[in-house]
Amino acid sequence: MSQAQRKFRLPHPEPVDALVYARFTGISTFMRLPHISVPEELEVALIGVPFDGGTTYRPGPRFGPRHVRAQSAIIRPWNPVLHVNPFAKHRIADFGDLSVNPLSIEDTFRRIEQGILPLLKAGVRCVCVGGDHSISLPILRAVAKQHGPVALIQFDAHNDLWDEYFGSKYSHGTPFRRAFEEGLLQDGGVLQVGLRGQVYGEEDFDFARAHKVRMVTAEEFHKEGLAIVQRHLKAFRGKLVYITLDIDVVDPAFAPALRGLSIVGCDVVEVSPPFDTGEITSLLAANLLYELLCVL
Amino acid sequence: MSQAQRKFRLPHPEPVDALVYARFTGISTFMRLPHISVPEELEVALIGVPFDGGTTYRPGPRFGPRHVRAQSAIIRPWNPVLHVNPFAKHRIADFGDLSVNPLSIEDTFRRIEQGILPLLKAGVRCVCVGGDHSISLPILRAVAKQHGPVALIQFDAHNDLWDEYFGSKYSHGTPFRRAFEEGLLQDGGVLQVGLRGQVYGEEDFDFARAHKVRMVTAEEFHKEGLAIVQRHLKAFRGKLVYITLDIDVVDPAFAPALRGLSIVGCDVVEVSPPFDTGEITSLLAANLLYELLCVL
Amino acid sequence: MSQAQRKFRLPHPEPVDALVYARFTGISTFMRLPHISVPEELEVALIGVPFDGGTTYRPGPRFGPRHVRAQSAIIRPWNPVLHVNPFAKHRIADFGDLSVNPLSIEDTFRRIEQGILPLLKAGVRCVCVGGDHSISLPILRAVAKQHGPVALIQFDAHNDLWDEYFGSKYSHGTPFRRAFEEGLLQDGGVLQVGLRGQVYGEEDFDFARAHKVRMVTAEEFHKEGLAIVQRHLKAFRGKLVYITLDIDVVDPAFAPALRGLSIVGCDVVEVSPPFDTGEITSLLAANLLYELLCVL
Amino acid sequence: MSQAQRKFRLPHPEPVDALVYARFTGISTFMRLPHISVPEELEVALIGVPFDGGTTYRPGPRFGPRHVRAQSAIIRPWNPVLHVNPFAKHRIADFGDLSVNPLSIEDTFRRIEQGILPLLKAGVRCVCVGGDHSISLPILRAVAKQHGPVALIQFDAHNDLWDEYFGSKYSHGTPFRRAFEEGLLQDGGVLQVGLRGQVYGEEDFDFARAHKVRMVTAEEFHKEGLAIVQRHLKAFRGKLVYITLDIDVVDPAFAPALRGLSIVGCDVVEVSPPFDTGEITSLLAANLLYELLCVL
Amino acid sequence: MSQAQRKFRLPHPEPVDALVYARFTGISTFMRLPHISVPEELEVALIGVPFDGGTTYRPGPRFGPRHVRAQSAIIRPWNPVLHVNPFAKHRIADFGDLSVNPLSIEDTFRRIEQGILPLLKAGVRCVCVGGDHSISLPILRAVAKQHGPVALIQFDAHNDLWDEYFGSKYSHGTPFRRAFEEGLLQDGGVLQVGLRGQVYGEEDFDFARAHKVRMVTAEEFHKEGLAIVQRHLKAFRGKLVYITLDIDVVDPAFAPALRGLSIVGCDVVEVSPPFDTGEITSLLAANLLYELLCVL
Amino acid sequence: MSQAQRKFRLPHPEPVDALVYARFTGISTFMRLPHISVPEELEVALIGVPFDGGTTYRPGPRFGPRHVRAQSAIIRPWNPVLHVNPFAKHRIADFGDLSVNPLSIEDTFRRIEQGILPLLKAGVRCVCVGGDHSISLPILRAVAKQHGPVALIQFDAHNDLWDEYFGSKYSHGTPFRRAFEEGLLQDGGVLQVGLRGQVYGEEDFDFARAHKVRMVTAEEFHKEGLAIVQRHLKAFRGKLVYITLDIDVVDPAFAPALRGLSIVGCDVVEVSPPFDTGEITSLLAANLLYELLCVL
Repeated sequence: MSQAQRKFRLPHPEPVDALVYARFTGISTFMRLPHISVPEELEVALIGVPFDGGTTYRPGPRFGPRHVRAQSAIIRPWNPVLHVNPFAKHRIADFGDLSVNPLSIEDTFRRIEQGILPLLKAGVRCVCVGGDHSISLPILRAVAKQHGPVALIQFDAHNDLWDEYFGSKYSHGTPFRRAFEEGLLQDGGVLQVGLRGQVYGEEDFDFARAHKVRMVTAEEFHKEGLAIVQRHLKAFRGKLVYITLDIDVVDPAFAPALRGLSIVGCDVVEVSPPFDTGEITSLLAANLLYELLCVL
Repeated sequence: MSQAQRKFRLPHPEPVDALVYARFTGISTFMRLPHISVPEELEVALIGVPFDGGTTYRPGPRFGPRHVRAQSAIIRPWNPVLHVNPFAKHRIADFGDLSVNPLSIEDTFRRIEQGILPLLKAGVRCVCVGGDHSISLPILRAVAKQHGPVALIQFDAHNDLWDEYFGSKYSHGTPFRRAFEEGLLQDGGVLQVGLRGQVYGEEDFDFARAHKVRMVTAEEFHKEGLAIVQRHLKAFRGKLVYITLDIDVVDPAFAPALRGLSIVGCDVVEVSPPFDTGEITSLLAANLLYELLCVL
Repeated sequence: MSQAQRKFRLPHPEPVDALVYARFTGISTFMRLPHISVPEELEVALIGVPFDGGTTYRPGPRFGPRHVRAQSAIIRPWNPVLHVNPFAKHRIADFGDLSVNPLSIEDTFRRIEQGILPLLKAGVRCVCVGGDHSISLPILRAVAKQHGPVALIQFDAHNDLWDEYFGSKYSHGTPFRRAFEEGLLQDGGVLQVGLRGQVYGEEDFDFARAHKVRMVTAEEFHKEGLAIVQRHLKAFRGKLVYITLDIDVVDPAFAPALRGLSIVGCDVVEVSPPFDTGEITSLLAANLLYELLCVL
Repeated sequence: MSQAQRKFRLPHPEPVDALVYARFTGISTFMRLPHISVPEELEVALIGVPFDGGTTYRPGPRFGPRHVRAQSAIIRPWNPVLHVNPFAKHRIADFGDLSVNPLSIEDTFRRIEQGILPLLKAGVRCVCVGGDHSISLPILRAVAKQHGPVALIQFDAHNDLWDEYFGSKYSHGTPFRRAFEEGLLQDGGVLQVGLRGQVYGEEDFDFARAHKVRMVTAEEFHKEGLAIVQRHLKAFRGKLVYITLDIDVVDPAFAPALRGLSIVGCDVVEVSPPFDTGEITSLLAANLLYELLCVL
Repeated sequence: MSQAQRKFRLPHPEPVDALVYARFTGISTFMRLPHISVPEELEVALIGVPFDGGTTYRPGPRFGPRHVRAQSAIIRPWNPVLHVNPFAKHRIADFGDLSVNPLSIEDTFRRIEQGILPLLKAGVRCVCVGGDHSISLPILRAVAKQHGPVALIQFDAHNDLWDEYFGSKYSHGTPFRRAFEEGLLQDGGVLQVGLRGQVYGEEDFDFARAHKVRMVTAEEFHKEGLAIVQRHLKAFRGKLVYITLDIDVVDPAFAPALRGLSIVGCDVVEVSPPFDTGEITSLLAANLLYELLCVL
Repeated sequence: MSQAQRKFRLPHPEPVDALVYARFTGISTFMRLPHISVPEELEVALIGVPFDGGTTYRPGPRFGPRHVRAQSAIIRPWNPVLHVNPFAKHRIADFGDLSVNPLSIEDTFRRIEQGILPLLKAGVRCVCVGGDHSISLPILRAVAKQHGPVALIQFDAHNDLWDEYFGSKYSHGTPFRRAFEEGLLQDGGVLQVGLRGQVYGEEDFDFARAHKVRMVTAEEFHKEGLAIVQRHLKAFRGKLVYITLDIDVVDPAFAPALRGLSIVGCDVVEVSPPFDTGEITSLLAANLLYELLCVL
């Protein structure tokens, strides 16, 4: 169903006006938007996916949606650089959190996929707040069911293409290898930006190379800037694109490069409030979410 | 309007079941109850009053409702000591926050009074989460408008009967002196439990004595226990009672003494999240709220 | 094999002397004991079980062993109340951590059982530091394999006898129900001390009653003291006993009541460093460990 | 009265020597300077203005002076880049805090204006540490009373030219609109550096444009550097200038551009210790204060 | 010189009135008292001794005076239990900090002794805020020079009578052994209250027993209360007494037992702000100081 | 003895594989390497030197080794930029901590020198983790005893060439002045990179100039980059070099410039965990250690 044809019954959702109601008041939602759980009423849904059972070291991203909601109270609607108010342009609301099972990755993956699918079917673009990076896999499963394989732009310090941890196939270090294996992604259809730091061994990039993953390291990005990203993105014009953003890559300067893409959805993951002194990562994530909404 | 006569259109509100949906998921509300802003649908309303413009030292209680909501996710419904599930017994929901103006005490007092009044008219009992202690004054104004003067039980380390701070009449140290002066409280109709610590001078108790305030110090409470409170409360049986609880008095052991009173409303104030390391005060406040709900 | 018959090749393990080497120096081990992973050299093993995949709300106990090790540097060897130096009396060392899989409860349970069994076979008493409370189940499986069903003394605010969370059978709220079902525990053979707080419903104690679990609430314990525990413990004299201590019951006053029991092992669980401001819970856990060592 | 003509009775004030008295010792004052409350003895006064009643979101700047004093103990006197020791060049001391009323903005504004005026009359340049940004308005009132309208250089992420919040005219988002309306500032006489982030709407810059406010965004500053600031400052040479610095613009690189201006006073505002983990903002503010002293 | 004969030139020092000047304003001093460094003007001096070079584990007490000053802003003057305002009764002020050398214990001890002596000679009673417990030794040296050996009441979890750490004679674990050896204390003239926890070995109490130290353990104190302390104190009536309080014994309930003693001075030590989350220990120390002032 | 000739009896030490054993498990050692205290078995030793008795302001670096060990669990072995796995190339292990005396600088210096010397004699390169900067002096004493005077590369915001603090010659501000005076360093043989911030006076660089210290300020480094460092380093080729890194200079970009030098040892100092919110400095130090290992 095209969005143009849709009829909406609820009034256009708008963020609470901070000049009238102070930022610290009210039930906490993403960007102080209304809480609307009816896909048919939305064009873009902000969705919490509070699962961190895929974490291999420091847990805590299960609290990501709660804290990003709280910190997003600071967001104002008008972007003076891009000259856009995303909340006026689209029907955007807080859809709430997907149901998860912190005791089972497999069960959670089923719940996430089943939670996302009705939204996609209703033509809603999903902007998910994790949770750890494992959640991108069931989201991509839903996306592929609705749209077939899509291109992926991944902002991340690590490529998350490892095979297994402790003998387990599912974790926050392995989602995109599984996605390739399951046919959700295609050779040449993945761009990774921001890779840096040590890895386990020389062979850690073999899988990426075999699948023609486009890689831009943090060093290359700092040297060449947006130009190198834009060069790679040429191949993605016209294709449906999913964007995933691991908060360990923090530079919001990438956002302008994304304008003009057919973005089918996106996520921001790995915000871990128990280790986030001063809530600065949650605040950063709130700002990144806003930037993503502006380029949708 | 008696509660027995009411007709409700919405289903009975219940807390989210933590055995089905994990505690860290979902939009954060008091006790994970539904957010219902229609007085006619409620018997008891949990209400945030996020105002701390009456603070004379450390600000922060404006964030009290946000953090008590978050920490109240741990509350389970059944009280095995009192054998009661308050959520099954009454229609209880999160009413949301009252509108406040952090830049003006007077304007905020008007907003609070106007926010509480329609609830009282609809026969709803209000359980407010502050905010600093100054908020009790406009609540008592609304209560007096609806019910006339009521008795007051105040759990507090300080009597909050001072005259003025820095030449200002309204603050968290003065609400009950103003309430006496405005005729909202009556001589002999106030019981203060938990008084302790230093004061400014010997004459600080003069006003209390002149108005026959019943005072139970922390020392007396620890020595004599609930008995001394119950002795005083005899005079309050049959009267409408409002309960106010400053979190600097932390002992939840008082709750059983309150059974059998005609409680018209209550508040828990002075939770200050910026100074609450480990969220333990917010968690305590959530438990105190639950205890109050059980004796309503 | 009786302990008396054992021959040891390594010298008697002793804590580092804090009058010679400052407490903040050296590789961090439990009580500054040597790290010895050879069961045959030990009588008592201090073992980390860093698993929190059974947590339903706040994760973090996976860091429990690391932080309890650090805080246990403050422990001095001589107990002037009980007149005992446990490190002189027994061969006690830090055995290290058991291998876990944070991505799978089932796999972790297998690893824990297989990790504990060789120690039990070598006649070593295991003192485990969790980890969340789910770890007690695989430990009890190992204990039952070696000794048959044992009596259980559980210090805990909750009875942890729930059936399932989110449809999953294994979690920190269900270990002892599973243990009954698997025949690891016996009717009448469980004593729970410290129960308090709300539960989900009236029926939450049905399972406990059906299995004749002896229950001492926090209120009863505070009123009657050790006497009530000792009365129940009479039934346990002569039996092998396993002790499990959830850190949410914090009163170390219980320790003396345990003297004279045939303690086969014990654990201290639910220390969650990311939520432990000032490390005070880790420090408490270190002191509780010491008290347990004194009554072994 | 020109400074050259003044006679001083007290010896030249100097910071405590950290090579003799350790930085953690002594009553805490700005830069470890003497506490001197006599305007006639000073050329430059470091003044605390601990008011945050103009805050619309997160309170706390009332503790700014206390924490900036503590962190300023690290400051050493000699600036090896500018080759200057400001404490040797001028008579600088800690004047103490102005009296404020946390319960009333209007009363506080009167107190601030009355507190600053005698200093200005005595020819003292005031360097104020806030407090929130609302305090700049009463300071500018005092400045205008003594000197007439002055030019303003504002380092800030937001222009603070909004009209009202919650129906109130005075707050930390409105001081410079009020200053224009009251004739304290003049068209073309304001330079704002560092503007960034979202605003409420497209029309938020209308007032600024109508009053010919010179605006340098954070992006422009990062691209063009000091040159763009210096170009604007040409118009300010020869005029009296007041400088205000909101700590949300953190780059101390601007300081050299200010040399050669006739600076009549300055402030550093919006340091909020309760939200300042690790005291890093207070430490930054202390360093910014030092840089400002060096260009006075 | 008797205090009665003294003539004072400065007006009677009083704490800043918190009903007029808000608690968060002003240069931070103990109890918001004036800073007076002239012994002749004082009867009681509050003195910071910011030295922690005697610490054997966690450093930080060097910041004790700074943080106790900040937290003492909450103290009100009138004690409604003892019916006394100590600031009205005596001339009490903040004397400032003694000079210390964090790089040398020996040099610091000399500085402390030389800093205290002129105060004692002027008939001033010294109330010192540490710092670690090693500072009590040089204070006792000064006291003995002026008054000869005095009786000592020590509230402490540890007896601090160890012989040496790491081969060093001076530390926070050894001050009172040195004091005995140097003749500053006398057999039978020391009362220790609050002893608890493990020690290094059975022989750790030998020195105490040899010197007839009166010991009251925490267990005994909790069981018998003030009575046991008062029984011991009978022997101290009429003697000059010095009181030392290690913050690890936190019960302020002891204060009333001290009325009627000839207190020559006292200290509160081991407040370590870097490890004091939420400043609660500093706040406690401020209250203990107040209680000590009330019994002086 | 050349390393090539050495025979090793223990197997090649390797970090624990994080794909098999989760990062939060196990006894905490540097980089999860084995703990080996036998110099003959090592080529490179990671050594903790937990001493902060040379600190003049904020203590805490005594906990540096403990926290850097914990945070170094995140390090992966392969450096994809330099194409090297240092743990495969060299025999590297955690040697443990040197013995220190927190009560005596002089005694600690003797212990450090005696602790380092046997390692140097066995041909081991020492990578030390402080501790405050004073520890570099006894390390240089040991280095000079074994190798004679060496060249020094110091990354630091301050030159640490002051003469004395509080009359004491040894502290974290004076180690390299002492090293020059003792003949451990030579004129022209010291390069300092990263100097910034205020100093005590103009004359603070006199000693540096007299000894031909090569100085690169932070400003110069940011402007000219590695080129300026490399220009200076030409003079050091072929000489034995010791590297010291104060964590207050945080840019790891310098590491590549160090390739090709004959590095005899290095240290990372001034990590102060009590003031390190979120453990980010410890984490940075762990990464710097890794970079240093890669260029060894």
